[in-house]
Amino acid sequence: MTYRPICVLGLGLIGGSLVRAVSGAPSGRKVWGATATDSTADQARADGYDVEPNVDAALQRANEEDALVVLAVPLPAVPAVLSRVHEVSPTCRLTDVVSVKRAMRDAVRQHAPQTRYVGGHPMAGTEESGWAAGSATLFQGARWVVAADEGLDLEVWSEVTELAWDCGALVVPATAEEHDAAVGRVSHLPHLLAAVLAAVALDEGPAGVSQGKLALSLAAGSFADGTRVAGTRPELVLAMCQGNREGLLAAVDDALGRLGAARGSLASTGGLAATVNAGNRARSRWEETRAAEPILIDRDIELARLRALGRQGAVLAGWRSPS
Amino acid sequence: MTYRPICVLGLGLIGGSLVRAVSGAPSGRKVWGATATDSTADQARADGYDVEPNVDAALQRANEEDALVVLAVPLPAVPAVLSRVHEVSPTCRLTDVVSVKRAMRDAVRQHAPQTRYVGGHPMAGTEESGWAAGSATLFQGARWVVAADEGLDLEVWSEVTELAWDCGALVVPATAEEHDAAVGRVSHLPHLLAAVLAAVALDEGPAGVSQGKLALSLAAGSFADGTRVAGTRPELVLAMCQGNREGLLAAVDDALGRLGAARGSLASTGGLAATVNAGNRARSRWEETRAAEPILIDRDIELARLRALGRQGAVLAGWRSPS
Repeated sequence: MTYRPICVLGLGLIGGSLVRAVSGAPSGRKVWGATATDSTADQARADGYDVEPNVDAALQRANEEDALVVLAVPLPAVPAVLSRVHEVSPTCRLTDVVSVKRAMRDAVRQHAPQTRYVGGHPMAGTEESGWAAGSATLFQGARWVVAADEGLDLEVWSEVTELAWDCGALVVPATAEEHDAAVGRVSHLPHLLAAVLAAVALDEGPAGVSQGKLALSLAAGSFADGTRVAGTRPELVLAMCQGNREGLLAAVDDALGRLGAARGSLASTGGLAATVNAGNRARSRWEETRAAEPILIDRDIELARLRALGRQGAVLAGWRSPS
Repeated sequence: MTYRPICVLGLGLIGGSLVRAVSGAPSGRKVWGATATDSTADQARADGYDVEPNVDAALQRANEEDALVVLAVPLPAVPAVLSRVHEVSPTCRLTDVVSVKRAMRDAVRQHAPQTRYVGGHPMAGTEESGWAAGSATLFQGARWVVAADEGLDLEVWSEVTELAWDCGALVVPATAEEHDAAVGRVSHLPHLLAAVLAAVALDEGPAGVSQGKLALSLAAGSFADGTRVAGTRPELVLAMCQGNREGLLAAVDDALGRLGAARGSLASTGGLAATVNAGNRARSRWEETRAAEPILIDRDIELARLRALGRQGAVLAGWRSPS
């Protein structure tokens, strides 16, 4: 069997890693990329990858070779690239790797409504960015959400899922709403709390002078880990957090409620057991979750069943029977 | 020159690492320990270390060999051990490795008032605990606060500082109040935020059923780092957080204010730039702080000068001129 070629638009950390991962994948399928940044294109070509001169050329080739197109640009750049898709390859099979799924679905409906779109989101990344930071192994063992909203094209769903597996990832099916609520809690809230924690330590006074030089000099393990993602480029954090306003707001409100309750308890009885025990139990549950065995699925599985599996915390590793 | 022997009371992660570090240190000084837990004593002896049968015997030997005594038990166990110090070795040179300094100072004043006490706090640790988790290199490059409160014994200050250097650590001088305020921000608050973040992801409903199975299955890098210390044994986290009520309350209030401001901004304009940029700047400042060159100090330096250095974020690596 011949696997469908992949056309990656955007060669940053995720797009660049995708090009590398697919190039070395067992399927042996073709992959090419495009980027609006000439220096990035030069770098990627110098590293031996197939890069088209521009987005239009990459999409033209996607037409000719019937490729699966992957949008790998930050959310603010999405509408412009979708407009090119609509112009050059309006009915292509389309997925993306953007970290918010409702805003992406809305953008596709608005700017490229005829595409056969199934959203995706590989839960992988580092605090670095750009082509040079990418790696063929970035997705190994990572979770990759593939949208399972009612009404989408199951054939494209299978192909996006196979792309994720090809990159060594495990697939989690979810609706756009479920995805955004979940990543608000486990990805966007961590970024916001990391920023808050770092700022509390720096403790800048009104004149912008740090009152926290002693504190910063003492900050080690728990602070280093708790603020690691605050080192991410702010524009990337803003794009994903602001793009998931509703999901993040719910998570922030939950966090404010829990932190406020801890504050009240510390001030009154001095006790933090409820907060600390709940956190310890939740961390243990997460570790158990990570250790759970991935499952295989049938080729004729339905969307409703996929969504149910996702809600149970299942991760999908492959087809039950080979084709 | 012969270095003063060290008597370590408590052989958990920190005390056990201290015994190992001093045993292999360039000073070649003697070190022995004691613990209330027989199985730990057996383990430590089997690993080749010098362990007295009980705390009283270790303190008796400290008397005979004029040792520096190091309290390395959790805060709740401190009063009982201090009472033994007062009984067996009432005027000994005393330090500790407990993570709160005001509560420790108060406990020493109450239970062992005649000791020559200079508090200490090595900023090192992992989410593990117990003798087996210890390591001779735990303190390498770590910051070690040595109390610089007005009126304390500068001779003992120098000896505690030399012990920290002997273990490969860098010394930060601070008053008990400054220490507690700083660690409230960079150590205790991170533990509390980690607990809150983990609990938000698990999202337990009223019946204790997790509504967050999908979220937990997606949680990766930012969540893994942000909740790492939630895996610490709850009783250890509670001992340090509850023992620093005042310092932690100030840090929590600052965090609540910043998170509330971010929430308001996200809900109204949708913008998080102020929060995210401040966090990114603070993380960069911390990285610069970590890269700063440690300094050497004069042997006749005064306490006021030491405190000033600590407030500027200086870390001390040794004496300016060898003795």
